[in-house]
Amino acid sequence: MTDALPSARQPLLHDRYAGAGIDAPLRTNAIIEGLLAHRSVRFYAPTPLPAGTIETLVAAAQSAATSSNLQTWSVVAVEDESRRARLSALAQNQAFIREAPLFLAWIADLSRLDRVGQARGRHLEGLDYLEMFMVAAIDAALAAQNAVVAAESLGLGTCYVGALRNHPEKVAAELGLPPGAMAVFGLAVGYPAPGAEGAVKPRLAQNVILHREQYGAPEEPASVAAYDQALADFSEATGQGRTTWTGRVMTRVGTLAGLSGRERMQAALNALGFPLR
Amino acid sequence: MTDALPSARQPLLHDRYAGAGIDAPLRTNAIIEGLLAHRSVRFYAPTPLPAGTIETLVAAAQSAATSSNLQTWSVVAVEDESRRARLSALAQNQAFIREAPLFLAWIADLSRLDRVGQARGRHLEGLDYLEMFMVAAIDAALAAQNAVVAAESLGLGTCYVGALRNHPEKVAAELGLPPGAMAVFGLAVGYPAPGAEGAVKPRLAQNVILHREQYGAPEEPASVAAYDQALADFSEATGQGRTTWTGRVMTRVGTLAGLSGRERMQAALNALGFPLR
Repeated sequence: MTDALPSARQPLLHDRYAGAGIDAPLRTNAIIEGLLAHRSVRFYAPTPLPAGTIETLVAAAQSAATSSNLQTWSVVAVEDESRRARLSALAQNQAFIREAPLFLAWIADLSRLDRVGQARGRHLEGLDYLEMFMVAAIDAALAAQNAVVAAESLGLGTCYVGALRNHPEKVAAELGLPPGAMAVFGLAVGYPAPGAEGAVKPRLAQNVILHREQYGAPEEPASVAAYDQALADFSEATGQGRTTWTGRVMTRVGTLAGLSGRERMQAALNALGFPLR
Repeated sequence: MTDALPSARQPLLHDRYAGAGIDAPLRTNAIIEGLLAHRSVRFYAPTPLPAGTIETLVAAAQSAATSSNLQTWSVVAVEDESRRARLSALAQNQAFIREAPLFLAWIADLSRLDRVGQARGRHLEGLDYLEMFMVAAIDAALAAQNAVVAAESLGLGTCYVGALRNHPEKVAAELGLPPGAMAVFGLAVGYPAPGAEGAVKPRLAQNVILHREQYGAPEEPASVAAYDQALADFSEATGQGRTTWTGRVMTRVGTLAGLSGRERMQAALNALGFPLR
């Protein structure tokens, strides 16, 4: 199944790194090719999903590792059109949430363990700590990514929705979440609209992300400069205007406006039943 | 590639749900079968990894979605035996960290964006907020899970290491992390020792995890009771003694002792340069 090719001969790597490549032979197979070909899909066909799709994605998600087998996550599958429209309104009005037939809300869920404790007449002290919220958010992410890999293997497109955190309490109310449960992100799932499969977005060169033995990225300034140009080219080619990566970073995190309300995450989480001690 | 079979005929589903199955035909293919067959590997052969393995895993990881393309994560690849031994000592002395030839430390990394801002003479205000730490931790988890899927497709085993959070400052010092970077979890990677491929661990029934339209799990008490028995059977069969899931939950989060020092996560993150506003 494995087939080592020099990275220069790997077209998928070429797209992913905008020609920067990697410094070693890629070990590849159909699964790895599928992972490298990932793209987020933002335009969907109205085609319904075949029976069993949701259950299959969730079985894949549940097969991901989970910290100490605590399984501190849930997923709410939203198919109802009016609910998807309301969730879209709470998540920066992204149109594809209304278009895709399925929206999965991934829940950092400590409420289940709380109920297990309550059934024994106990408050589980650990649940009040930031650490356990981190466990739940990370567990939800590992699970969701398995669902994404499974979805793409079935020819479906997906798009994560971080904007589901813009109004955490309103989203919790819409989804009927109990205290100790929070929607950490959403995922739209559906068949890509014809011609809207999207392009592989280039990432930072691997020498910026991968460190050996200790952190240190002497090539970072040069790689970021090259990436700024590559991403500007990509943005222009995909009709999004000529913007560098640095430019996007400044807009997104340079001021509080870029957080779109998420600067109040501490207060929102407290209100949702996470003391975050 | 897709082949829908009733779930009762799917042996992988049978193991994953301890016979509870799912209420729909599974949509399956080689990729989904690989995901469902996941198990954590805790005993490794000393076999070295072929050239290009680390770079391939990281290319897969970089192909996962990342919030607003901010790429707020890094990975430190540790192969040095003495460093792996020191990291094992910081992570509950888990022996497999010393045995597996590769240990990947996954970093929630806001330091890179901080450097991008500094190069423009700006402090990026958003980086000081809990929201951006969540973005970084979730991005790292999505990336790591892609690496796990890629590793397993190459016949490698993996095991996540949450205990890397037991001593965040000492781990940061060992890995030379700059302020604004924190190792959120580790991942051991290597060939399973012969006979130590592990068994598929049963999870909670899907009716506990998957909610439709709104949160609600009327079957939860019955499903948890059935799972308690299934997991006790599994634990006994795999030589870990007869323990229910509820019993494990009580031990792990019932008191602060189960957090193994991670109850001070807020203070540790503050010390590492995350104000978490």
